[in-house]
Amino acid sequence: MLKAALARIASSVDIIATIGYTPKMNALIEPRLLKGFRDFLPAAESARRALVGKIEATFLSFGFVPIDTPALEYADILLGKGGGETEKQIYRFKDNGGRDVALRFDLTVPFARFVAQHYAELSFPFKRYHIGKAWRGENAQRGRYREFIQCDFDIIGSDSAAADFEILLMIRSVLSNLGADVAIKVNHRGMFNRFLSSIGRKEKSADILRIVDKAAKVGADETGAALAQIAGDSDARKILDFTGVSSDENAGLSFEQELARVTELSGGPSPESERLATLGRFMRDALCEEKGDGFIVLDPSITRGLDYYTGVVFETFLNDLPDIGSICSGGRYDNLAGLYSKNAISGVGASVGLDRLIAALEILDRLPAGANTASVAIACLRQENSGLYQALAARLRGAGIACEVFVDATESAGKPPVKQFVLAEKKGLRWMVIPGAAPLHDALTLRDLAARKNIEGLSAQEAARIILGE
Amino acid sequence: MLKAALARIASSVDIIATIGYTPKMNALIEPRLLKGFRDFLPAAESARRALVGKIEATFLSFGFVPIDTPALEYADILLGKGGGETEKQIYRFKDNGGRDVALRFDLTVPFARFVAQHYAELSFPFKRYHIGKAWRGENAQRGRYREFIQCDFDIIGSDSAAADFEILLMIRSVLSNLGADVAIKVNHRGMFNRFLSSIGRKEKSADILRIVDKAAKVGADETGAALAQIAGDSDARKILDFTGVSSDENAGLSFEQELARVTELSGGPSPESERLATLGRFMRDALCEEKGDGFIVLDPSITRGLDYYTGVVFETFLNDLPDIGSICSGGRYDNLAGLYSKNAISGVGASVGLDRLIAALEILDRLPAGANTASVAIACLRQENSGLYQALAARLRGAGIACEVFVDATESAGKPPVKQFVLAEKKGLRWMVIPGAAPLHDALTLRDLAARKNIEGLSAQEAARIILGE
Repeated sequence: MLKAALARIASSVDIIATIGYTPKMNALIEPRLLKGFRDFLPAAESARRALVGKIEATFLSFGFVPIDTPALEYADILLGKGGGETEKQIYRFKDNGGRDVALRFDLTVPFARFVAQHYAELSFPFKRYHIGKAWRGENAQRGRYREFIQCDFDIIGSDSAAADFEILLMIRSVLSNLGADVAIKVNHRGMFNRFLSSIGRKEKSADILRIVDKAAKVGADETGAALAQIAGDSDARKILDFTGVSSDENAGLSFEQELARVTELSGGPSPESERLATLGRFMRDALCEEKGDGFIVLDPSITRGLDYYTGVVFETFLNDLPDIGSICSGGRYDNLAGLYSKNAISGVGASVGLDRLIAALEILDRLPAGANTASVAIACLRQENSGLYQALAARLRGAGIACEVFVDATESAGKPPVKQFVLAEKKGLRWMVIPGAAPLHDALTLRDLAARKNIEGLSAQEAARIILGE
Repeated sequence: MLKAALARIASSVDIIATIGYTPKMNALIEPRLLKGFRDFLPAAESARRALVGKIEATFLSFGFVPIDTPALEYADILLGKGGGETEKQIYRFKDNGGRDVALRFDLTVPFARFVAQHYAELSFPFKRYHIGKAWRGENAQRGRYREFIQCDFDIIGSDSAAADFEILLMIRSVLSNLGADVAIKVNHRGMFNRFLSSIGRKEKSADILRIVDKAAKVGADETGAALAQIAGDSDARKILDFTGVSSDENAGLSFEQELARVTELSGGPSPESERLATLGRFMRDALCEEKGDGFIVLDPSITRGLDYYTGVVFETFLNDLPDIGSICSGGRYDNLAGLYSKNAISGVGASVGLDRLIAALEILDRLPAGANTASVAIACLRQENSGLYQALAARLRGAGIACEVFVDATESAGKPPVKQFVLAEKKGLRWMVIPGAAPLHDALTLRDLAARKNIEGLSAQEAARIILGE
C-alpha cells in the first residue's frame, strides 16, 4: 500500500525518487488521528467543498483573484525574530537539512511575506483571496481544531473608503449568496481613541480596547468592573455609555443617529467620523434598488481586541443566529508587510470563520448540498455489458446529469437488482436506471428510489428529462 | 501584521487563544521561500484552480465523492513500523506534546488509514477522489518540488473488470474534458509473471519488472544489458521480445492482435488474458458512438516498477505530447489497508500528476484560463460615488459578469481615467465601464481595452450584452 503510493508518485509525477522501505505486514497499526485533527467523510467534504466553491464564486464576481503560498515556511518568517508564547502553539521543527521551519498558523503572515517578496510583480490596489489550511498546536479541548481552513480576502494598496466598503459589501454578498442575511457591526479604532483622549484615558487605550472587546461575552457588569479597576468608576461608566454596552437605550438608533451620538462623545466631527459617515452613504447608494435597513450597523463596542488595526474594524453576525458569534471579522491596517519590507502597504481585509459558518448553516439547514454529486446510478445486470452501461451513462452525463455506473452484478440475471437498490439508497442517490437486455437499444426502466416506484419503457433522453425534472 | 492575523483567527473563528508575541519592527526579515516550495501568483493560481475544478467536475460526473484527511498524522501511521530510507525524505518531527508526527507524503497511505478507521461508515464499492497537498523533503534539484498537489481517485471494494475499466474511462474523460486526447498503455502484472514462469525466471520477477519499467527511459540496449546480467543473454532477448521494447515490429498490432501475441508467449489463455480481453471489449462497447481506434493500448513493457500492484497497471500519455511522460498512472491492488486492518480491501486507482499536466497543457496552449475571473472594471471617477458604482456592478454581476470596482479616483473629475486604463490592462481586463455623472441614471461608456475604443451612450443592460458577446 505504501509502495503503491510511492509507485504512483515516483513514476507518474516523477517528483520523487523511489523509497526503499518495505512495511512489516504482520502486526496491525491502530488507525487513528492526532487529537484536534479531523477526517472529512464524503457528505461533510462535499458540503465543505460546495460551500467554499460558492464563497469563491462571490470573490471572483468582485474581481478578487486567488493566490497560494506554501504550508511550510522558515520559522523566522512566520514568527518574526522572537519566539515567546507563540512557540508553544505552532508546529515548528528542524527539517532534514537543519532548517528552522514551521507550518503556517494563518494566511495573513504568509500574505505579508508574499507581498514583500513579489511587490514588483503585483498591481495595486491588489485584491486577493486565499483559501487554505493552517495549523496550531492549540489546546484541542473546547471544540478547537489544530487543523482548519482559513478563508481570507483583502484589498491592499488603497486607503480609500471605497475599499473598506467593498470588503463589507462582499461579506454581505458572500452570505446572501448562501441564503443568509447579516448585520455587520462596524466601528472605527480612531473614533474610540478620540473618545478616550477626550476623557483623558488615551494612555490606557490598549487595555481598555481589550476589555471592551470581551463585553459581548462577559456582560456589562463584569466589563464595568474590569474598566473601573483601570479607569475608576466614573470613567468606566462613561466608557460603557460610549460603547452602548450598559444599556439598550441606543438600540433603536439609525446608523446616522448612532454616528451623531458617538461623534459628539468623541469631541465632534473628525476624519474618522467622516469615514464612517461615508460608509453609511455608500451603503445607501449601493442598496438603492433594495428595501430594508441596510446591513452595516455602527457599534462602538466592536474593538477587535488587538492593536494592529488602525481604521475601521468589523464583525459579522447572522440575523437568524447572532449568538453563534461573528462569522467574518476584519478591519483596516496601515502596515501589512512591515516585518519584511520598507514599503508601507495599507489595506483592509477580513477572514471567514469557515468552521463556525458551517456549524451555523447546519443549524439553519442552509448548508448547500454537495454540488453536482450524482443522484443517479446505472444498475449492473450483466457484468459483461459494463462497456454499454458506460455508453448509456455518457448519454446522461452529456445531458448534464452526474451518473454513477455500478460495477458488480449482485443478483443472477433476470432478477431485480435489489442489493443495488439498497446500496444506491445508502449512497443517498435518488434514481436508478435499470437497462434493458440490449442496453443502448432497448427501453430502460427508471426507478424512483424515494417512492420505490418504477417508470418503464423509457429512452435515455426521456429518462434524462424526468431526472432533470423537465 | 502578525497580531492582525491572530486577531482574526482568535476572535472570528474562535479556534485559537490569543498569542502574546509582539514582533520587533526595527530590522527587516528577508522575505524568502524554502527551497523546493512555491508561491502561486494570481495567474498561475487561477489556472491551477480552474484546472482542478475541471478535473473535479469529471470525477463528480462519474459519481465519485471527495474526502479529506489531515496533513499531519502519527509517523507510525504514515511510515509503518520501520523507518529506513523514508526517514530522510519526509517531514517528521516531535510536536509540542512529544508525539512523533509527520506530514503526509502522498494521499494513498492516509486513504488506507481512513478506510480502515471508517470501514463501518462507508458503502462499498466506494468511489472516492482526494485532491490535496503532500510534502517530501526530496532533493529539490531537477525541478522536483517539496510541496505538491496530489489528485487521486480509486474504486475500492470491487474486483470487477468494470471497475478497472471505469478508472481508465474516467482518465480519458478527465483529459478529453481538458481538450487533450490520450493513449492509456495497459498491462497486467499477472500476465508478465506467467510469461516469466514459462521461461523459468519467475523468481527474478521483482528485479526484472523494475528493469523493464525503466526501458522507456534508458532504451533497449541498456535494458537488454541489465536483463542479461540477471537472466542471461537468451532470456534477456526473450523478455525484450515479450515487452516489445526491442523492436517496433508489433507497433501496428491492434489491441486484440497484441493480446493474442502476449497470450501465446505467456503460455496460452489465462484469467489475466481474459481480464485484458474484457477491457478491450468494454472499450469498444463504451465507444460505440465514437470513431477512432480506442484509447487503451496493450503495452507489455508497462510494469509500474514496484511490487504492490497485483492486476492491471497503466500509464497515460498525451497524444500530442507523449514525451513528457505519463500524466496519470495507477493500477489494481489487492490489499489496500493491510497495515491497519484485517479486512482485505482490493481496488483500482490512479493519480494525476498535476504539475506535469500543467506543464504539458501550457506547452500545448490548452491550460484553461482562470474560470470566472473578471474581465470588466468599473472606473472610479468620483470617489464619493463608490456606492453607486457598486450598485452598477451589481447589475453586471446579476447578468453573470464578474466585475471589479476600482476604489481610487486617479485623475481629477472630468478627465479620462487613463491611469485606471493602464491598471486594468496590467490586470488583463478586457473592458472598462466608465459611468456617467449620475452613475445609475446616465448612459455609460464601455471602453474596449484591447481595441482602445469607446462605445458611448449605453445602459447597463446594453453594456452587459456587449460584454457577453450577445
